[in-house]
Amino acid sequence: MNKGSEYFIGIDGGGTKCKARLEDANGNLLSEAVAGPANVARDMQGAVKSIIEASQKAIECSKIKHLSLDKVHAGLGLAGINLPNTKAQFLKHSHPFKSQRVTTDLHIACLGAHEGNDGAIVIVGTGSSGLSIIQHRHHELGGHGFVVGDKGSGAWLGKMAIAHCLETLDGIATANELSAAVLRALECENAYQLVKITLEAKPAFYATLAPLVLQLAKQNQSQAIAIVEEAAAYINKLSFRLLEDSPPRLSFIGGITEPMMCHLDPHIQALACKPKLSPESGAILYSKPQLLTRECQ
Amino acid sequence: MNKGSEYFIGIDGGGTKCKARLEDANGNLLSEAVAGPANVARDMQGAVKSIIEASQKAIECSKIKHLSLDKVHAGLGLAGINLPNTKAQFLKHSHPFKSQRVTTDLHIACLGAHEGNDGAIVIVGTGSSGLSIIQHRHHELGGHGFVVGDKGSGAWLGKMAIAHCLETLDGIATANELSAAVLRALECENAYQLVKITLEAKPAFYATLAPLVLQLAKQNQSQAIAIVEEAAAYINKLSFRLLEDSPPRLSFIGGITEPMMCHLDPHIQALACKPKLSPESGAILYSKPQLLTRECQ
Repeated sequence: MNKGSEYFIGIDGGGTKCKARLEDANGNLLSEAVAGPANVARDMQGAVKSIIEASQKAIECSKIKHLSLDKVHAGLGLAGINLPNTKAQFLKHSHPFKSQRVTTDLHIACLGAHEGNDGAIVIVGTGSSGLSIIQHRHHELGGHGFVVGDKGSGAWLGKMAIAHCLETLDGIATANELSAAVLRALECENAYQLVKITLEAKPAFYATLAPLVLQLAKQNQSQAIAIVEEAAAYINKLSFRLLEDSPPRLSFIGGITEPMMCHLDPHIQALACKPKLSPESGAILYSKPQLLTRECQ
Repeated sequence: MNKGSEYFIGIDGGGTKCKARLEDANGNLLSEAVAGPANVARDMQGAVKSIIEASQKAIECSKIKHLSLDKVHAGLGLAGINLPNTKAQFLKHSHPFKSQRVTTDLHIACLGAHEGNDGAIVIVGTGSSGLSIIQHRHHELGGHGFVVGDKGSGAWLGKMAIAHCLETLDGIATANELSAAVLRALECENAYQLVKITLEAKPAFYATLAPLVLQLAKQNQSQAIAIVEEAAAYINKLSFRLLEDSPPRLSFIGGITEPMMCHLDPHIQALACKPKLSPESGAILYSKPQLLTRECQ
């Protein structure tokens, strides 16, 4: 590394994985890396481990001599950090970076999507949520976790598919292509095997079934359509609520955005635009407070 | 205790609590006792502890001199024991009883409800499930746990009420008496506080909100009615599926049976009869294999 040069790392820590992006002071991409889940509300120690691992991998991949974490400014966007006590607990950990700024995964996604400018985002990935930032005012909604929230997300689609499959195995719903596809995907033959898998399953596991549900909906399988339409109805509600804030742009982000899009309200489809930058890039923006207005920090 | 006399204990181990009933050989009730949850799939060590605790309490309460667990025949009906691996794991534990016979909580509830005769039961408590026993043939359905099953149960009602309340806090549903009642009951003012409570919450916690939902449905609160009607639709499906087996009796058991009953299909309401004996009494029947035909064992 050149003496005096500055390095920045952006971390996008979600329920499924933790991504890191390393840049130099001129905004040149040096490397990217991925590690395990980093939801601090769900698993604090695991999240801390994933953040360090992704960061160290990124530094190794960059092959910049003598570069180490203590020479890098970090911007962290983390799932679950919106809970005040969780954030306080996270900040108690000593960090290995030259500087560290911490916010939510939603916030960095929104900063990235609109290059730090005003706008709104809807996340439809393992979880679901929305955020608008208008004249420094943050309006966050949805999320709330796999058990009581995150409706319409990949994990929710998978959960609904398994619940439906169990009803067919109980003989209170008719077996169909969806239930057969779930059993095939999970290599199960009966309810016992299926329930056993769910006992310790995390949201990321349920989300692995989402593409299957969306694919069958595309093929007009009626039960898959029913589940996807209920998901879309919720995502529509999130989106319309954000549009009340009159954001100049609305971006959709997350693993199932693309196959979900055709099920959304035509008005939402027409407005939706692609994110300009990734959440990790948004996290790098966030690591440079001098670039952001006070309220965005 | 009289030398040569026999004692029997019936254990009903559920997700919320573990009940014990002690009888002498003539079927006289000697004592009853309660301990913590005993779902062996969810928490094996906790369940074993609750079973021993409830049993020892019952013996102490009976005040029969020199009576100890190793002099008592036990019949155990346990939530979660239907999973084959879980049952095998449970049976590896050495037990303190003179004899021990283990089956599901559903099975002992059905034995109790019909005094060991043919019949069907529907459980609507913390969880939901159904069982018919007809000419020694067991037909079990529903259950499957809080995440992907147990629809229509007390825990499910509570979960739906919280999910709805979060939508009102997000401004994507209109605040109403139900959302206000949930916030009041849980002493929350915002989504952060509400989500924090759910992070580690067990089904039994969610089920504490069920009476509130049912009460508001009774008072014609529209969202409470919508949730309760979806619950009732599922319980109807379970019930009609069991009626296909032509059980001579159909009994409803569980904490929210009574307030749920008026929402069920009139045909189901007309057929539903009270359980003759408690699940714990069913467990005592089960502890006496000589009283049961081979297939019922």
